[in-house]
Amino acid sequence: MDEVRIIEIKKSVFENNDRDADRLRGELRDRGVFLLNLMSSPGSGKTTTLVRTINLLKDKLRIAVMEADIDSDVDARKIKDATGMETIQLHTGGMCHLDAEMTRQGLENIDMQAVDLVILENVGNLVCPAEFDTGSCSNVMILSVPEGHDKPLKYPLMFSVCDVVLINKIDVAPYFDFDLDECIANIRMRNPKARVIPVCAKTGEGVSVFTDWLAEEVAKWKTTKKQ
Amino acid sequence: MDEVRIIEIKKSVFENNDRDADRLRGELRDRGVFLLNLMSSPGSGKTTTLVRTINLLKDKLRIAVMEADIDSDVDARKIKDATGMETIQLHTGGMCHLDAEMTRQGLENIDMQAVDLVILENVGNLVCPAEFDTGSCSNVMILSVPEGHDKPLKYPLMFSVCDVVLINKIDVAPYFDFDLDECIANIRMRNPKARVIPVCAKTGEGVSVFTDWLAEEVAKWKTTKKQ
Repeated sequence: MDEVRIIEIKKSVFENNDRDADRLRGELRDRGVFLLNLMSSPGSGKTTTLVRTINLLKDKLRIAVMEADIDSDVDARKIKDATGMETIQLHTGGMCHLDAEMTRQGLENIDMQAVDLVILENVGNLVCPAEFDTGSCSNVMILSVPEGHDKPLKYPLMFSVCDVVLINKIDVAPYFDFDLDECIANIRMRNPKARVIPVCAKTGEGVSVFTDWLAEEVAKWKTTKKQ
Repeated sequence: MDEVRIIEIKKSVFENNDRDADRLRGELRDRGVFLLNLMSSPGSGKTTTLVRTINLLKDKLRIAVMEADIDSDVDARKIKDATGMETIQLHTGGMCHLDAEMTRQGLENIDMQAVDLVILENVGNLVCPAEFDTGSCSNVMILSVPEGHDKPLKYPLMFSVCDVVLINKIDVAPYFDFDLDECIANIRMRNPKARVIPVCAKTGEGVSVFTDWLAEEVAKWKTTKKQ
Protein backbone atom coordinates (compact mmCIF):
# COMPACT_ATOMS: atom_id res chain seq x y z
CA MET A 1 0.00 0.00 0.00
CA ASP A 2 1.33 3.44 -0.91
CA GLU A 3 1.83 6.09 1.70
CA VAL A 4 -0.72 8.89 1.82
CA ARG A 5 0.01 12.45 2.80
CA ILE A 6 -1.37 13.59 6.14
CA ILE A 7 -1.84 17.31 6.70
CA GLU A 8 -2.40 18.67 10.21
CA ILE A 9 -4.78 21.59 9.76
CA LYS A 10 -5.47 24.26 12.32
CA LYS A 11 -8.62 26.03 13.38
CA SER A 12 -9.38 29.17 11.42
CA VAL A 13 -8.34 32.49 12.85
CA PHE A 14 -10.76 34.31 10.56
CA GLU A 15 -13.86 35.52 12.29
CA ASN A 16 -15.91 35.80 9.19
CA ASN A 17 -16.03 32.34 7.69
CA ASP A 18 -18.72 33.24 5.19
CA ARG A 19 -16.60 36.01 3.68
CA ASP A 20 -13.61 33.70 3.48
CA ALA A 21 -15.72 30.96 1.89
CA ASP A 22 -16.97 33.35 -0.78
CA ARG A 23 -13.40 34.44 -1.49
CA LEU A 24 -12.26 30.83 -1.86
CA ARG A 25 -15.20 30.06 -4.15
CA GLY A 26 -14.26 33.05 -6.31
CA GLU A 27 -10.69 31.79 -6.63
CA LEU A 28 -11.93 28.32 -7.55
CA ARG A 29 -14.11 29.86 -10.24
CA ASP A 30 -11.18 31.82 -11.66
CA ARG A 31 -9.14 28.63 -11.80
CA GLY A 32 -11.98 26.54 -13.22
CA VAL A 33 -11.71 24.03 -10.37
CA PHE A 34 -14.92 22.58 -8.89
CA LEU A 35 -14.87 21.80 -5.15
CA LEU A 36 -17.45 19.30 -3.89
CA ASN A 37 -18.10 19.05 -0.14
CA LEU A 38 -19.37 15.60 0.84
CA MET A 39 -20.96 15.23 4.28
CA SER A 40 -22.70 12.52 6.31
CA SER A 41 -22.86 10.70 9.65
CA PRO A 42 -19.99 8.39 10.53
CA GLY A 43 -20.32 5.11 8.66
CA SER A 44 -22.94 6.09 6.10
CA GLY A 45 -20.63 5.22 3.20
CA LYS A 46 -18.87 8.44 2.11
CA THR A 47 -15.61 6.71 1.24
CA THR A 48 -17.17 3.79 -0.64
CA THR A 49 -19.36 6.24 -2.57
CA LEU A 50 -16.26 8.28 -3.43
CA VAL A 51 -14.44 5.22 -4.77
CA ARG A 52 -17.37 4.45 -7.09
CA THR A 53 -17.67 8.13 -8.09
CA ILE A 54 -13.99 8.49 -8.90
CA ASN A 55 -13.84 5.26 -10.90
CA LEU A 56 -16.81 6.39 -13.01
CA LEU A 57 -15.39 9.87 -13.61
CA LYS A 58 -11.61 9.50 -13.71
CA ASP A 59 -11.39 9.06 -17.48
CA LYS A 60 -13.40 12.26 -18.03
CA LEU A 61 -12.14 14.51 -15.25
CA ARG A 62 -8.87 15.15 -13.43
CA ILE A 63 -9.76 14.54 -9.77
CA ALA A 64 -8.08 15.04 -6.39
CA VAL A 65 -9.48 14.00 -3.01
CA MET A 66 -9.10 15.49 0.48
CA GLU A 67 -10.13 13.20 3.33
CA ALA A 68 -10.87 15.01 6.61
CA ASP A 69 -10.76 13.01 9.82
CA ILE A 70 -9.96 13.61 13.45
CA ASP A 71 -7.48 10.76 13.40
CA SER A 72 -6.21 7.85 11.23
CA ASP A 73 -5.56 7.67 7.49
CA VAL A 74 -7.95 4.75 6.87
CA ASP A 75 -10.04 6.63 4.30
CA ALA A 76 -7.19 8.24 2.34
CA ARG A 77 -5.51 4.84 1.97
CA LYS A 78 -8.75 3.24 0.86
CA ILE A 79 -9.33 5.88 -1.83
CA LYS A 80 -5.73 5.79 -3.06
CA ASP A 81 -5.60 1.98 -3.18
CA ALA A 82 -8.96 1.64 -4.93
CA THR A 83 -8.68 4.47 -7.45
CA GLY A 84 -5.02 5.52 -7.75
CA MET A 85 -6.15 9.15 -7.36
CA GLU A 86 -4.08 11.79 -5.60
CA THR A 87 -5.47 11.69 -2.06
CA ILE A 88 -4.47 13.71 0.97
CA GLN A 89 -5.59 13.14 4.52
CA LEU A 90 -6.51 16.23 6.55
CA HIS A 91 -6.28 15.83 10.30
CA THR A 92 -8.55 18.31 12.05
CA GLY A 93 -6.87 18.18 15.47
CA GLY A 94 -10.08 17.09 17.16
CA MET A 95 -12.23 19.65 15.34
CA CYS A 96 -15.69 18.42 14.37
CA HIS A 97 -15.91 20.22 11.02
CA LEU A 98 -13.92 22.09 8.37
CA ASP A 99 -14.30 25.79 7.69
CA ALA A 100 -13.14 27.70 4.60
CA GLU A 101 -9.67 28.47 5.94
CA MET A 102 -9.08 24.84 6.92
CA THR A 103 -10.25 23.80 3.45
CA ARG A 104 -7.83 26.31 1.89
CA GLN A 105 -4.97 24.78 3.93
CA GLY A 106 -5.84 21.44 2.38
CA LEU A 107 -6.09 22.85 -1.17
CA GLU A 108 -2.60 24.34 -0.84
CA ASN A 109 -1.31 20.76 -1.04
CA ILE A 110 -2.96 20.11 -4.39
CA ASP A 111 -1.66 21.19 -7.81
CA MET A 112 -4.67 23.27 -8.86
CA GLN A 113 -3.42 23.49 -12.46
CA ALA A 114 -3.73 19.72 -12.75
CA VAL A 115 -7.31 19.16 -11.54
CA ASP A 116 -10.90 19.82 -12.64
CA LEU A 117 -12.61 18.47 -9.54
CA VAL A 118 -11.55 18.36 -5.89
CA ILE A 119 -13.71 16.27 -3.58
CA LEU A 120 -13.60 17.06 0.12
CA GLU A 121 -14.83 14.29 2.40
CA ASN A 122 -15.82 16.24 5.50
CA VAL A 123 -15.71 14.92 9.10
CA GLY A 124 -18.45 12.33 9.74
CA ASN A 125 -20.97 14.47 11.60
CA LEU A 126 -24.53 15.61 10.77
CA VAL A 127 -24.36 18.75 12.91
CA CYS A 128 -21.29 20.98 12.80
CA PRO A 129 -20.16 20.62 9.16
CA ALA A 130 -23.53 22.03 8.08
CA GLU A 131 -22.83 25.25 9.97
CA PHE A 132 -19.58 26.12 8.19
CA ASP A 133 -19.39 27.04 4.51
CA THR A 134 -16.19 25.39 3.26
CA GLY A 135 -16.08 27.49 0.09
CA SER A 136 -17.32 24.51 -1.90
CA CYS A 137 -19.19 24.90 -5.19
CA SER A 138 -21.72 22.31 -4.13
CA ASN A 139 -22.70 20.38 -0.99
CA VAL A 140 -23.76 16.75 -1.17
CA MET A 141 -24.76 14.58 1.76
CA ILE A 142 -25.33 10.89 2.26
CA LEU A 143 -28.07 9.47 4.45
CA SER A 144 -27.83 5.70 4.75
CA VAL A 145 -30.87 3.46 5.13
CA PRO A 146 -29.88 2.07 8.58
CA GLU A 147 -29.88 5.62 10.01
CA GLY A 148 -33.63 5.93 9.49
CA HIS A 149 -36.00 8.09 7.48
CA ASP A 150 -36.60 10.53 10.36
CA LYS A 151 -33.15 12.12 10.22
CA PRO A 152 -34.22 15.23 8.21
CA LEU A 153 -36.54 16.05 11.14
CA LYS A 154 -33.71 15.87 13.65
CA TYR A 155 -30.81 17.43 11.71
CA PRO A 156 -32.61 20.13 9.71
CA LEU A 157 -29.66 22.36 8.79
CA MET A 158 -27.64 19.56 7.15
CA PHE A 159 -30.52 18.70 4.83
CA SER A 160 -31.22 22.35 4.02
CA VAL A 161 -27.66 23.19 2.87
CA CYS A 162 -27.26 20.28 0.43
CA ASP A 163 -27.91 20.30 -3.32
CA VAL A 164 -28.04 16.51 -3.49
CA VAL A 165 -28.99 13.88 -0.90
CA LEU A 166 -27.76 10.37 -1.71
CA ILE A 167 -29.79 7.66 0.05
CA ASN A 168 -27.15 4.96 0.44
CA LYS A 169 -27.24 1.24 1.38
CA ILE A 170 -30.56 0.96 -0.44
CA ASP A 171 -29.78 -2.79 -0.86
CA VAL A 172 -30.43 -3.45 2.84
CA ALA A 173 -33.76 -1.59 2.94
CA PRO A 174 -35.69 -4.88 3.39
CA TYR A 175 -33.94 -5.46 6.72
CA PHE A 176 -34.75 -2.05 8.20
CA ASP A 177 -37.93 -0.08 8.96
CA PHE A 178 -37.05 2.49 6.31
CA ASP A 179 -39.74 4.23 4.27
CA LEU A 180 -38.17 5.88 1.20
CA ASP A 181 -41.28 7.93 0.37
CA GLU A 182 -41.48 9.26 3.92
CA CYS A 183 -37.74 10.00 3.84
CA ILE A 184 -38.10 12.00 0.62
CA ALA A 185 -41.09 13.87 2.10
CA ASN A 186 -39.01 14.70 5.20
CA ILE A 187 -36.13 15.95 3.03
CA ARG A 188 -38.56 18.07 0.93
CA MET A 189 -39.82 19.73 4.13
CA ARG A 190 -36.28 20.97 4.80
CA ASN A 191 -35.19 21.57 1.23
CA PRO A 192 -37.72 21.51 -1.61
CA LYS A 193 -34.98 21.86 -4.25
CA ALA A 194 -32.66 19.05 -3.11
CA ARG A 195 -32.15 16.28 -5.62
CA VAL A 196 -32.61 12.88 -3.95
CA ILE A 197 -30.79 9.88 -5.47
CA PRO A 198 -31.08 6.36 -4.02
CA VAL A 199 -27.80 4.47 -4.41
CA CYS A 200 -25.93 1.42 -3.25
CA ALA A 201 -22.27 2.34 -3.15
CA LYS A 202 -21.32 -1.28 -2.41
CA THR A 203 -22.83 -2.62 -5.66
CA GLY A 204 -22.68 0.63 -7.65
CA GLU A 205 -26.46 0.81 -8.17
CA GLY A 206 -27.60 4.36 -8.90
CA VAL A 207 -24.15 5.95 -8.59
CA SER A 208 -24.02 6.86 -12.31
CA VAL A 209 -27.10 9.08 -11.79
CA PHE A 210 -25.03 11.02 -9.28
CA THR A 211 -21.86 11.11 -11.42
CA ASP A 212 -23.87 12.31 -14.46
CA TRP A 213 -25.17 15.19 -12.33
CA LEU A 214 -21.67 15.93 -10.99
CA ALA A 215 -19.98 15.87 -14.43
CA GLU A 216 -22.61 18.33 -15.67
CA GLU A 217 -22.06 20.66 -12.69
CA VAL A 218 -18.28 20.63 -13.24
CA ALA A 219 -18.77 21.45 -16.94
CA LYS A 220 -21.14 24.34 -16.07
CA TRP A 221 -18.65 25.69 -13.50
CA LYS A 222 -15.83 25.70 -16.05
CA THR A 223 -17.88 27.55 -18.66
CA THR A 224 -18.62 30.36 -16.18
CA LYS A 225 -14.90 30.72 -15.40
CA LYS A 226 -13.62 34.29 -15.18
CA GLN A 227 -16.92 35.90 -16.14
CA MET B 1 -50.23 10.44 21.94
CA ASP B 2 -49.49 12.45 25.08
CA GLU B 3 -47.72 15.76 24.85
CA VAL B 4 -44.03 15.79 25.79
CA ARG B 5 -42.29 18.69 27.43
CA ILE B 6 -39.78 20.58 25.29
CA ILE B 7 -37.11 22.61 27.06
CA GLU B 8 -35.06 25.16 25.13
CA ILE B 9 -31.62 25.02 26.71
CA LYS B 10 -28.93 27.63 26.30
CA LYS B 11 -25.21 27.39 25.85
CA SER B 12 -23.25 27.38 29.08
CA VAL B 13 -21.77 30.64 30.30
CA PHE B 14 -19.37 28.77 32.57
CA GLU B 15 -15.85 28.69 31.28
CA ASN B 16 -14.81 25.71 33.29
CA ASN B 17 -17.08 22.88 32.22
CA ASP B 18 -15.04 20.24 34.02
CA ARG B 19 -15.46 22.00 37.36
CA ASP B 20 -19.17 22.40 36.78
CA ALA B 21 -19.49 18.74 35.78
CA ASP B 22 -17.76 17.63 38.98
CA ARG B 23 -20.07 19.85 41.02
CA LEU B 24 -23.14 18.37 39.33
CA ARG B 25 -21.86 14.83 39.90
CA GLY B 26 -21.35 15.63 43.59
CA GLU B 27 -24.94 16.85 43.88
CA LEU B 28 -26.21 13.73 42.13
CA ARG B 29 -24.25 11.61 44.58
CA ASP B 30 -25.75 13.48 47.56
CA ARG B 31 -29.21 12.89 46.18
CA GLY B 32 -28.54 9.26 45.28
CA VAL B 33 -29.54 9.85 41.65
CA PHE B 34 -27.54 8.13 38.89
CA LEU B 35 -27.16 10.05 35.61
CA LEU B 36 -26.32 8.00 32.52
CA ASN B 37 -25.07 9.81 29.39
CA LEU B 38 -25.86 7.86 26.22
CA MET B 39 -24.04 8.87 23.04
CA SER B 40 -23.77 7.66 19.42
CA SER B 41 -23.93 8.66 15.76
CA PRO B 42 -27.30 9.65 14.34
CA GLY B 43 -29.39 6.58 13.66
CA SER B 44 -27.40 3.98 15.58
CA GLY B 45 -30.37 3.07 17.76
CA LYS B 46 -30.14 5.14 20.96
CA THR B 47 -33.88 5.60 21.33
CA THR B 48 -34.82 1.98 20.56
CA THR B 49 -32.14 0.80 23.02
CA LEU B 50 -33.56 3.16 25.65
CA VAL B 51 -37.08 1.79 25.19
CA ARG B 52 -35.77 -1.77 25.77
CA THR B 53 -33.66 -0.62 28.71
CA ILE B 54 -36.50 1.22 30.42
CA ASN B 55 -38.96 -1.63 29.96
CA LEU B 56 -36.48 -4.07 31.54
CA LEU B 57 -35.72 -1.78 34.50
CA LYS B 58 -38.89 0.17 35.22
CA ASP B 59 -40.21 -2.27 37.83
CA LYS B 60 -36.91 -2.10 39.74
CA LEU B 61 -35.92 1.56 39.36
CA ARG B 62 -37.66 4.93 39.15
CA ILE B 63 -36.48 6.35 35.82
CA ALA B 64 -36.68 9.68 33.97
CA VAL B 65 -35.40 10.41 30.47
CA MET B 66 -33.99 13.58 28.86
CA GLU B 67 -33.85 13.52 25.05
CA ALA B 68 -31.47 16.07 23.53
CA ASP B 69 -31.97 17.05 19.92
CA ILE B 70 -31.39 20.07 17.75
CA ASP B 71 -34.99 19.97 16.60
CA SER B 72 -38.17 17.84 16.75
CA ASP B 73 -39.67 15.83 19.60
CA VAL B 74 -39.65 12.51 17.71
CA ASP B 75 -37.55 10.69 20.30
CA ALA B 76 -39.28 11.99 23.44
CA ARG B 77 -42.66 10.97 22.04
CA LYS B 78 -41.34 7.55 21.09
CA ILE B 79 -39.98 6.92 24.61
CA LYS B 80 -43.10 8.21 26.33
CA ASP B 81 -45.47 6.22 24.11
CA ALA B 82 -43.46 2.99 24.41
CA THR B 83 -42.63 3.09 28.11
CA GLY B 84 -44.93 5.58 29.87
CA MET B 85 -41.84 7.10 31.52
CA GLU B 86 -41.49 10.78 32.32
CA THR B 87 -39.63 12.13 29.27
CA ILE B 88 -38.52 15.63 28.48
CA GLN B 89 -37.14 16.88 25.20
CA LEU B 90 -34.15 19.22 25.37
CA HIS B 91 -33.68 21.46 22.35
CA THR B 92 -30.07 22.53 22.05
CA GLY B 93 -30.63 25.55 19.82
CA GLY B 94 -28.37 24.12 17.11
CA MET B 95 -25.64 23.09 19.55
CA CYS B 96 -23.90 19.84 18.69
CA HIS B 97 -23.47 18.59 22.26
CA LEU B 98 -24.55 19.10 25.88
CA ASP B 99 -22.25 20.42 28.58
CA ALA B 100 -22.76 20.19 32.35
CA GLU B 101 -24.70 23.46 32.65
CA MET B 102 -27.04 22.48 29.81
CA THR B 103 -27.55 19.11 31.50
CA ARG B 104 -28.33 20.88 34.77
CA GLN B 105 -30.96 23.00 32.99
CA GLY B 106 -32.61 19.77 31.89
CA LEU B 107 -32.44 18.18 35.36
CA GLU B 108 -34.20 21.21 36.86
CA ASN B 109 -37.34 19.97 35.11
CA ILE B 110 -37.24 16.57 36.83
CA ASP B 111 -38.41 15.78 40.38
CA MET B 112 -35.11 14.46 41.72
CA GLN B 113 -36.80 13.08 44.86
CA ALA B 114 -38.83 10.74 42.66
CA VAL B 115 -36.08 9.12 40.56
CA ASP B 116 -33.17 6.68 40.95
CA LEU B 117 -31.90 6.90 37.38
CA VAL B 118 -31.92 9.71 34.82
CA ILE B 119 -30.91 8.78 31.30
CA LEU B 120 -29.66 11.55 29.02
CA GLU B 121 -29.78 10.78 25.31
CA ASN B 122 -27.15 13.15 23.96
CA VAL B 123 -27.16 14.73 20.47
CA GLY B 124 -26.38 12.17 17.74
CA ASN B 125 -22.72 12.97 17.07
CA LEU B 126 -19.50 10.97 17.56
CA VAL B 127 -17.30 14.04 17.94
CA CYS B 128 -18.41 16.96 20.11
CA PRO B 129 -20.36 15.19 22.89
CA ALA B 130 -17.17 13.27 23.79
CA GLU B 131 -15.41 16.58 24.51
CA PHE B 132 -17.84 17.83 27.14
CA ASP B 133 -18.32 16.15 30.52
CA THR B 134 -22.07 16.38 31.21
CA GLY B 135 -21.66 15.59 34.90
CA SER B 136 -22.90 12.05 34.29
CA CYS B 137 -21.99 9.14 36.55
CA SER B 138 -21.29 6.96 33.54
CA ASN B 139 -20.91 7.31 29.75
CA VAL B 140 -22.25 4.67 27.41
CA MET B 141 -22.04 4.73 23.63
CA ILE B 142 -23.64 2.77 20.84
CA LEU B 143 -21.83 1.76 17.68
CA SER B 144 -24.13 0.09 15.18
CA VAL B 145 -22.99 -2.63 12.80
CA PRO B 146 -23.76 -0.66 9.58
CA GLU B 147 -21.35 2.10 10.70
CA GLY B 148 -18.37 -0.26 10.39
CA HIS B 149 -15.75 -1.73 12.70
CA ASP B 150 -13.18 0.99 11.90
CA LYS B 151 -14.96 3.78 13.80
CA PRO B 152 -12.80 3.55 16.96
CA LEU B 153 -9.82 4.43 14.72
CA LYS B 154 -11.54 7.54 13.39
CA TYR B 155 -13.35 8.85 16.50
CA PRO B 156 -10.84 8.00 19.25
CA LEU B 157 -12.05 10.33 22.01
CA MET B 158 -15.62 9.02 21.99
CA PHE B 159 -14.45 5.46 22.53
CA SER B 160 -11.96 6.47 25.22
CA VAL B 161 -14.51 8.29 27.44
CA CYS B 162 -17.08 5.47 27.56
CA ASP B 163 -17.45 2.79 30.24
CA VAL B 164 -19.60 0.61 27.99
CA VAL B 165 -19.80 0.27 24.20
CA LEU B 166 -22.98 -1.37 22.93
CA ILE B 167 -22.58 -2.91 19.46
CA ASN B 168 -26.12 -2.55 18.14
CA LYS B 169 -27.97 -4.00 15.10
CA ILE B 170 -26.00 -7.22 15.53
CA ASP B 171 -28.88 -8.99 13.70
CA VAL B 172 -27.89 -7.43 10.36
CA ALA B 173 -24.19 -8.33 10.65
CA PRO B 174 -24.50 -10.95 7.83
CA TYR B 175 -25.42 -8.17 5.37
CA PHE B 176 -22.45 -5.91 6.18
CA ASP B 177 -18.66 -6.26 6.08
CA PHE B 178 -18.47 -6.02 9.86
CA ASP B 179 -15.84 -7.92 11.84
CA LEU B 180 -16.83 -8.02 15.53
CA ASP B 181 -13.41 -9.27 16.70
CA GLU B 182 -11.64 -6.49 14.80
CA CYS B 183 -14.14 -3.97 16.19
CA ILE B 184 -13.45 -5.10 19.76
CA ALA B 185 -9.67 -4.96 19.10
CA ASN B 186 -10.08 -1.39 17.77
CA ILE B 187 -12.10 -0.39 20.86
CA ARG B 188 -9.48 -1.98 23.16
CA MET B 189 -6.77 0.14 21.49
CA ARG B 190 -8.64 3.27 22.58
CA ASN B 191 -9.97 2.02 25.89
CA PRO B 192 -8.73 -1.26 27.39
CA LYS B 193 -11.28 -1.09 30.22
CA ALA B 194 -14.45 -0.52 28.19
CA ARG B 195 -17.04 -3.23 28.46
CA VAL B 196 -18.29 -4.27 25.02
CA ILE B 197 -21.80 -5.73 24.75
CA PRO B 198 -23.28 -6.87 21.40
CA VAL B 199 -27.03 -6.17 21.31
CA CYS B 200 -29.99 -5.99 19.00
CA ALA B 201 -32.29 -3.30 20.36
CA LYS B 202 -34.95 -4.20 17.79
CA THR B 203 -35.33 -7.81 19.04
CA GLY B 204 -34.01 -7.23 22.58
CA GLU B 205 -31.09 -9.66 22.18
CA GLY B 206 -28.29 -8.91 24.66
CA VAL B 207 -29.99 -5.86 26.22
CA SER B 208 -30.43 -7.59 29.60
CA VAL B 209 -26.62 -7.91 29.86
CA PHE B 210 -26.51 -4.12 29.67
CA THR B 211 -29.43 -3.53 32.07
CA ASP B 212 -27.89 -5.95 34.62
CA TRP B 213 -24.69 -3.90 34.49
CA LEU B 214 -26.67 -0.62 34.76
CA ALA B 215 -28.81 -1.79 37.72
CA GLU B 216 -25.64 -2.79 39.55
CA GLU B 217 -24.01 0.61 38.88
CA VAL B 218 -27.09 2.45 40.15
CA ALA B 219 -27.10 0.31 43.32
CA LYS B 220 -23.38 0.99 43.90
CA TRP B 221 -23.92 4.73 43.38
CA LYS B 222 -26.71 4.81 45.96
CA THR B 223 -24.67 2.98 48.60
CA THR B 224 -21.85 5.55 48.29
CA LYS B 225 -24.36 8.42 48.78
CA LYS B 226 -23.20 11.21 51.10
CA GLN B 227 -19.94 9.56 52.06
